Amino acid sequence: MRQTLEFLLHDWLKVSELTQRERFAEHSAETFAAVLDTCEKIAREKFAPFNRLADTQEPHFDGERVHLPESTHAALAAYVESGMLAAAQDYELGGMQLPCVIEMAANAFFSKANIAMGGYVMLTNGNANLLMAHGTPLQQEVFAKNEFAGRWFGTMCLSEPQAGSSLSDVATRAEPDGEGFEADPLGPRYRLKGNKMWISAGEHEISENIVHLVLAKIPGPDGKTIPGTRGISLFICPKHLVNERAELTGERNDVALAGLNHKLGYRGTTNCLLNFGEGRFQPRGQGGAIGYLVGRPGEGLKCMFHMMNEARIGVGLGATMLGYAGYEASLEYARQRPQGRPMTAAGKDAAAPQRPIIEHADVKRMLLAQKSYVEGALALELFCARLVDEQHSGTPAQAAAAGLLLEVLIPIAKSWPSEWCLEANSLAIQVLGGYGYTRDFPVEQYWRDNRLNMIHEGTHGIQGLDLLGRKVVMNGGSALLALAGRINETVQAAVQVPALAQHANELAAALAQVGKATKAAWSTSNPEEALANATPYMQAFGHVVLAWLWLDVVLAAQGESDFARGKQAAQRYFFTYELPKIGAWLAVAASREPVARDMQDAWF
Amino acid sequence: MRQTLEFLLHDWLKVSELTQRERFAEHSAETFAAVLDTCEKIAREKFAPFNRLADTQEPHFDGERVHLPESTHAALAAYVESGMLAAAQDYELGGMQLPCVIEMAANAFFSKANIAMGGYVMLTNGNANLLMAHGTPLQQEVFAKNEFAGRWFGTMCLSEPQAGSSLSDVATRAEPDGEGFEADPLGPRYRLKGNKMWISAGEHEISENIVHLVLAKIPGPDGKTIPGTRGISLFICPKHLVNERAELTGERNDVALAGLNHKLGYRGTTNCLLNFGEGRFQPRGQGGAIGYLVGRPGEGLKCMFHMMNEARIGVGLGATMLGYAGYEASLEYARQRPQGRPMTAAGKDAAAPQRPIIEHADVKRMLLAQKSYVEGALALELFCARLVDEQHSGTPAQAAAAGLLLEVLIPIAKSWPSEWCLEANSLAIQVLGGYGYTRDFPVEQYWRDNRLNMIHEGTHGIQGLDLLGRKVVMNGGSALLALAGRINETVQAAVQVPALAQHANELAAALAQVGKATKAAWSTSNPEEALANATPYMQAFGHVVLAWLWLDVVLAAQGESDFARGKQAAQRYFFTYELPKIGAWLAVAASREPVARDMQDAWF
Repeated sequence: MRQTLEFLLHDWLKVSELTQRERFAEHSAETFAAVLDTCEKIAREKFAPFNRLADTQEPHFDGERVHLPESTHAALAAYVESGMLAAAQDYELGGMQLPCVIEMAANAFFSKANIAMGGYVMLTNGNANLLMAHGTPLQQEVFAKNEFAGRWFGTMCLSEPQAGSSLSDVATRAEPDGEGFEADPLGPRYRLKGNKMWISAGEHEISENIVHLVLAKIPGPDGKTIPGTRGISLFICPKHLVNERAELTGERNDVALAGLNHKLGYRGTTNCLLNFGEGRFQPRGQGGAIGYLVGRPGEGLKCMFHMMNEARIGVGLGATMLGYAGYEASLEYARQRPQGRPMTAAGKDAAAPQRPIIEHADVKRMLLAQKSYVEGALALELFCARLVDEQHSGTPAQAAAAGLLLEVLIPIAKSWPSEWCLEANSLAIQVLGGYGYTRDFPVEQYWRDNRLNMIHEGTHGIQGLDLLGRKVVMNGGSALLALAGRINETVQAAVQVPALAQHANELAAALAQVGKATKAAWSTSNPEEALANATPYMQAFGHVVLAWLWLDVVLAAQGESDFARGKQAAQRYFFTYELPKIGAWLAVAASREPVARDMQDAWF
Repeated sequence: MRQTLEFLLHDWLKVSELTQRERFAEHSAETFAAVLDTCEKIAREKFAPFNRLADTQEPHFDGERVHLPESTHAALAAYVESGMLAAAQDYELGGMQLPCVIEMAANAFFSKANIAMGGYVMLTNGNANLLMAHGTPLQQEVFAKNEFAGRWFGTMCLSEPQAGSSLSDVATRAEPDGEGFEADPLGPRYRLKGNKMWISAGEHEISENIVHLVLAKIPGPDGKTIPGTRGISLFICPKHLVNERAELTGERNDVALAGLNHKLGYRGTTNCLLNFGEGRFQPRGQGGAIGYLVGRPGEGLKCMFHMMNEARIGVGLGATMLGYAGYEASLEYARQRPQGRPMTAAGKDAAAPQRPIIEHADVKRMLLAQKSYVEGALALELFCARLVDEQHSGTPAQAAAAGLLLEVLIPIAKSWPSEWCLEANSLAIQVLGGYGYTRDFPVEQYWRDNRLNMIHEGTHGIQGLDLLGRKVVMNGGSALLALAGRINETVQAAVQVPALAQHANELAAALAQVGKATKAAWSTSNPEEALANATPYMQAFGHVVLAWLWLDVVLAAQGESDFARGKQAAQRYFFTYELPKIGAWLAVAASREPVARDMQDAWF
């Protein structure tokens, strides 16, 4: 993977150009490489050896405490020690001022080695970043800084048992905590009461404290909350109360573990139902979880969504790395496992020795499919991360252009690897055959772990609605136009290369098909009709994006080296086996096929 | 499921017509229904409640014995009590003389309730059936009869650690067991030595004895075995030795458990590495597993393959039932789970109560996809089982016609549900969202259990090679022509129905595409070129077969009832969302796309 990663970062995305910007002026190709080296090493030594253990020694709750394997504590201590939690932060905050694209690339090693352990740091980082964007200076000093330092870990508490995809139904209430609640230096102080579901890293003893970021509604004077998402505010609820000098006060906040969820995969990350304010604990003499308002009342979701792009790139990259891990495991197996003989016109010679299965065309097809999925997905995630850097450190024009592209690419960055790198994991199992179905090999775990990614951080269906319902139509379709412009640049470059000209034309045709389907889907201006096939539309859109990226990547990988030939073969695989799939998906979107919409409960 | 099952059996497959045949003369729609009632009840009461337990209380070996949950013993005792093990056998053997299609339909309830428990009886039945076809009268009396009675269970021992898909590499040796070895009343007696891998039901204490059917090679006078499959013979190796009166002699045969495989799913069925003849036991004073030859030397695979059709229908039906179980679980959940509100042109009313998710188009799409996969697959398996009845009890002309169709349909019967009912299981998880990812709901287990089916009983790749490499080209393509004739009959009938005419034409066009791709794949007469894309070819072939069956089923389900409307919607779903997928698969097969074949190890 390292060679492909370096190629994508340097030859394709030209990350060294970032060092010309003031923020990254002290960096160089060498400092970037040093970060990757360090992370690759920690991941290999502290994370990878315990991937199976994190699965089999699932977190358990003894009624008082949640227990995790000692190796999880050790791995996260090593991660904290590396300083990676603050990788992108200012030097003065103890950070490294790394570009987002390098930070993501470095974290990819941890996801590949042990996705479940990586969950803790991803959440902590996202939590602290949110506070850097929306918290008060003291909230940043007390909470964010201690999260970047790894002293405290963080969570995101959005879902509730009755409010998963439908966040507008959040029922957790936040009431002002008595007289003078507004004057608390840590922020306006409320008492929260409600249940939060699916909270990853919601309980553990890895860090001294856990900083929960919680969505809740502040009732009006009539005691009622505002229906919908407009009524949602955001609060910091530390598990243990702290003072403004970031010292633990010794008081436990009223946040109680109601139970651990026992999952199909991703088991090493605790996942919890948390009760806020049930009265189990009595901070300052009474029940109710103490929470400090972040940002303004009613703007909780807006604050959350500010970090959504990076969170969704993170999920997509996690899915990608699970796919990559399975690809490498099955490639290694296929090189070593003898089975069968080549089929020739003269039949098979049963007396000849068996051949490694990597010589069989169908096995090569399965490996090539995986390669095209996982390397393509890696290109997608790094490309998006690079756009985040354009947003954060580019010129205003660069930032605007990048922001527009991200609008349409983020749903793909989240959904595409979740679906296709899961398929890669299934193919990895298939390459190993019966052995792949046993727990003696890692591929079955990758497949189980990866199945989460189509569900959390906005389900597959939600991503489709976001893409077709909002992103491609917003501002007169300007984001889609911007993407089309970029794709056309690649097409123009590729038509000049004889070996790629036909594929360039196929990509141009595919892009036109997406444009036509988008218009046709919305031609009746009826959201019910347009959006009934948002998921197949997104699948087609994703495949076109990936075809574009593959063509663009291969423009940077010409020549006859083994490395280049591999990239060219993966690109060709994608164009011959995958891109033609878009016809079936776009047809139902364009025709506004009504069969699903018209289906009645009683007919099932 | 019961209503759909009855509809397929009676309205579509006209199973009552079978009762006009002498063999089934004592049967009627009522006796068929009684069998289904009994099996449905036993499956509901004795199998289903313990499906999760069979997964969590995985078989374990204490060094002496393999332990299974008590509920597995009880469930299998109830199954044996029902007489279903001998369902298709002659009355004089204690059987019920049921048609294959009714036997399969009845067994479907067990697969749906607890696939892993069902594994034991499926193997026992297949084993005993093989002996009825190829064993001597005494082998049938001693072994088969006691298997049909459930006193002993059976296995199939084909694979070895170095010989999975490549059975020609079987290395287990069988040497004559001393002077007079040929005169043993139980059959020519040999001593077997070798290791057998992936042996399902290979060790347990559910039954008094285990009858292993083992592939091994008899060395020639020079001590060498014949390379390839021609050298393979078949042997009965009972775990405990028995005499010709079917009494246990008290001696343990030299068959030893080397280890249990710990699997991703299907955990309730023990899966073993067995050592034959390692000397752990000393039957009749010496090491070496005693085995009795079945059929003639060198014809072991031929005997095995005789039962292959029913075994592959059984695997396909198992995959189908796992899909069905997930479909029903997610349908039930979708009807009860409130989340979100309908999207209308006026937006959403956040103050309105949440709606059951079955009202959302994307959820209906996922349910409809599952319905089209699992009900379509059920139709496929029952259709194939009905053809087996034509083979066994039809006129010679009927038998020949059925046999020809089965040649091309069996690879689909095995592969299609393995792939698409697995996809159904993934969609079931998706419908349940986060809950589907927990072990509190059954859908994640169905998905894990079902992943086996693309691997065992001939992998997906092997099925593709069988289809494109042999079945569609054998005898000048006569099997493919026979299938095309049947499909055209359906097309002719459907063009008469206004609502179906367009779909009939689409099916005819799809069939023509398959024909063209078949010819194009073989146009260079080079197996390497033709077969490099055998798997995508098979995927397309399977989708065309399913489209045909759906159209045919819907011809029998016209009208406006809820039931008929459901079938019509599933058929329409299949034609609009699924059938168009064949273009991408057939394109690579027809163009003999070389990218996978040309790929080199060093390029990965």
